[in-house]
Amino acid sequence: MLGKYDFTKKVTVLTGDRPTGPLHLGHYAGSIRERVRLQDTAAERFVMVADTQAYTDNIDNTRKVGEAIPHIVADYIGCGIDPDRTTVFLQSAVPELAELTLLYMNMTTVSRLERNPTISAEKKMRGYGEAERDFPSGFLCYPIAQAADITGFRATHVPVGEDQLPMIELAQETASKVNRIASRDILPSPLAVLSATGRLPGIDGKAKASKSLGNAIHLLDSDVEIERKVMLMYTDPDHLTVAQPGRVEGNVVFAYLDAFHEDRQEVEALKDHYRRGGLGDVKVKRLLVKTLVDLISPIRERREKAYASPDAITDILRRGSAVARERVSEVLNDVRSGLGVYRFPAGLPHS
Amino acid sequence: MLGKYDFTKKVTVLTGDRPTGPLHLGHYAGSIRERVRLQDTAAERFVMVADTQAYTDNIDNTRKVGEAIPHIVADYIGCGIDPDRTTVFLQSAVPELAELTLLYMNMTTVSRLERNPTISAEKKMRGYGEAERDFPSGFLCYPIAQAADITGFRATHVPVGEDQLPMIELAQETASKVNRIASRDILPSPLAVLSATGRLPGIDGKAKASKSLGNAIHLLDSDVEIERKVMLMYTDPDHLTVAQPGRVEGNVVFAYLDAFHEDRQEVEALKDHYRRGGLGDVKVKRLLVKTLVDLISPIRERREKAYASPDAITDILRRGSAVARERVSEVLNDVRSGLGVYRFPAGLPHS
Repeated sequence: MLGKYDFTKKVTVLTGDRPTGPLHLGHYAGSIRERVRLQDTAAERFVMVADTQAYTDNIDNTRKVGEAIPHIVADYIGCGIDPDRTTVFLQSAVPELAELTLLYMNMTTVSRLERNPTISAEKKMRGYGEAERDFPSGFLCYPIAQAADITGFRATHVPVGEDQLPMIELAQETASKVNRIASRDILPSPLAVLSATGRLPGIDGKAKASKSLGNAIHLLDSDVEIERKVMLMYTDPDHLTVAQPGRVEGNVVFAYLDAFHEDRQEVEALKDHYRRGGLGDVKVKRLLVKTLVDLISPIRERREKAYASPDAITDILRRGSAVARERVSEVLNDVRSGLGVYRFPAGLPHS
Repeated sequence: MLGKYDFTKKVTVLTGDRPTGPLHLGHYAGSIRERVRLQDTAAERFVMVADTQAYTDNIDNTRKVGEAIPHIVADYIGCGIDPDRTTVFLQSAVPELAELTLLYMNMTTVSRLERNPTISAEKKMRGYGEAERDFPSGFLCYPIAQAADITGFRATHVPVGEDQLPMIELAQETASKVNRIASRDILPSPLAVLSATGRLPGIDGKAKASKSLGNAIHLLDSDVEIERKVMLMYTDPDHLTVAQPGRVEGNVVFAYLDAFHEDRQEVEALKDHYRRGGLGDVKVKRLLVKTLVDLISPIRERREKAYASPDAITDILRRGSAVARERVSEVLNDVRSGLGVYRFPAGLPHS
C-alpha cells in the first residue's frame, strides 16, 4: 500500500491541512517542504485547505476555522508554494466533494469506520466516550470524506504520516469498490508516501508538535519567540553538567537539528561530542536557534506580506477552487456513471 | 411536535418519495392525495424525488433507482400533481442538500442516530446485523439528510406516517440547534402532520402495502390486475359462508373501502350488513374493484401518457430542481452564516 513517486507515469499529489490555526514546523518538516520540492517535478499538485474536515470536530468553534484559513494560505506562500504551479483550493468551495462523500457513505459500513485505528486514537484524544458513541457522525465519517478528496482528484500519491495510513487504506478500498462495481478502472488506487522526516516532536518532548498542545514553533513566530521556545526545549534530563555524557535519543534539540540543519556532518559530529560529554545544552540550542531563525525568518516575512492582502488570498483560493471543481465534477460524473447512478441528460440545472 | 396546517401563517410543505419502483395505493392514500388537495391552498409546495436517499440502501442496485425516477414523476402527474403549482425536483440535482447534510453531521452524534426507532426498525427489515453495525454509514445518517431536506426548504409542515415521526424530531432538534448557535431564528421548527388515512395494509393483510413485499396495488396496474389483486385480498378467514357474520376489523377489503370509497354511508351500511351476516366477500370485493378501477383508470391513463414523454419528465425535474437549488442555496448560506462557517465573499467559484 506504501509507494514512492514514479515520474515515468502520471503522478497526481493531493495534500492538505485542517485550518485550525497557523502552521508550525511539524507541518513544514512533515509535508510542506516536500510539496515545495514537488513543484520542480512533473507531478500534478493539489493543496487543499480542509475547512469542511475541520468543522467535523469544531462546529462549536467555527470562528477559529474561518480565521485560520487565510493564515494557512499565507503560510503556504511563505514556504514557497506557488499558486501558479500548485492548485491551492478550499474544500468547502468544491461541493462536488460533499456529493462524492454522500455517495461513498453508501459503500462503507459503520463497523468498517469504527475499526479505523486513526478514528479510535483521535476519539480518545478528543475525549469522546467509547461506549456511548457520543461523537458527531461527521467525525465518524470523515475518513470517507478523505477518500472522496483523494479519489475526487484521482490522486495517485498522498504524502502522509504513519498515523494516517488507515485513511489511505479506506481510500484504496473505495477506489477498488467503485472500479469493481463499474467493471472498469475509473479511479486509480492512491499510494501513501511516508515522509522521510517522520513526526516532529513537540518542544516539551511529547511525540507530536501540535497547535492544541501549545508545544510547536510556528511559521509566524518572531525570532525572539523562536529563541524562547528553543531555550525551553526538552533535552536529556540527566545531563546536568556540561562535562557529563548526554543522550541524543529523545532529545528534542537534536531531533530538530536532524530535521532542519543542512550540514548533516556537523550534526553528526555534535551528536558524538554530546554523547561523549563536554558539550552543553545551551551551545547546541544556540546553533538550533540560528538554524531555525535562518529557516523561518524569510518564510515569516513572505507570509506576513501575503497575510496583509486578504483579497489576494481570496483570489488564490477562488482560482484554485474553480480548477478543483472542474476536476472533481469530471470524476464525480465518471463515478456516478460507473455506479449506474442517475444523472441529468445534460448536466445539473443551475439555480 | 405534531401539528395541523394553519393557513393564517406561511405554510411550506415538503413531501417526497424514494424512487425504488412505481407508486401504489398506499402512497396515494397516505400522501399523494393530500398533496393534490394542498394545491388548492396557500401552501408553498415542494415534492422531492429522493434518489440520494434511495441509494443509501440500493448502492448495489442503482439501476432500479434510475429506472424508477420517471415512473414516480409520471405517477405524480397521473394523480394530479401539477408541476406549475408544485415544485417537483430531484434530490441529487440539488447538491446544496449534500453540503447541508455534511454540516449537520457535525451536530448529530452517532448514539443519537442509533437511538432512532425508525433506523432500528428499518435495520431489522433490511436484515442488517445489530451487534456488528454492518450497515452503510449512509443508512445510519439518512435521518440527517432528511433533516437537511426539511430545513433546507424551511418546511413548516411535513406530512408523514407515524413510523416517520422520529425523523421529524431530528429535524426539529437540528433546527433548534442551528437557531441556538446562531442566537437567532434561522430555521422554522417543522411540524409533522399525520395522514388522516393512516397506513394502508397490503392485500395479504400485512400491516403495510409495499413494493418490496409485492402486496400493493400500483397506480399503473391494469383493470384486470386490480380485479385480480382485490379478489386475492385477505378478508376474515373465519367467514366461510355468506350467511355467517364476518369481521370488519383487519379485513383488507373494508380498509380499502374506508380509504377510497367516496360514499361513507354506503360503506358503513355494508360493514353493518357484513357483521350481521348475509353479505358475501365476493359482493364487497366487486364493489371495491369498481371503486378502485374508477379511481385508478384515469390516473393510469394520465401517467401512461406522461411516462411516454421522457423529455417532458426531465424538463419538469430540471425546472423544479432549479427552483429548489435557489431556495436551498439561500438557506445554506443563512445556516452557514448563523453557524459562523467560512464563506467566500462573493459566492462560490464556478468550475
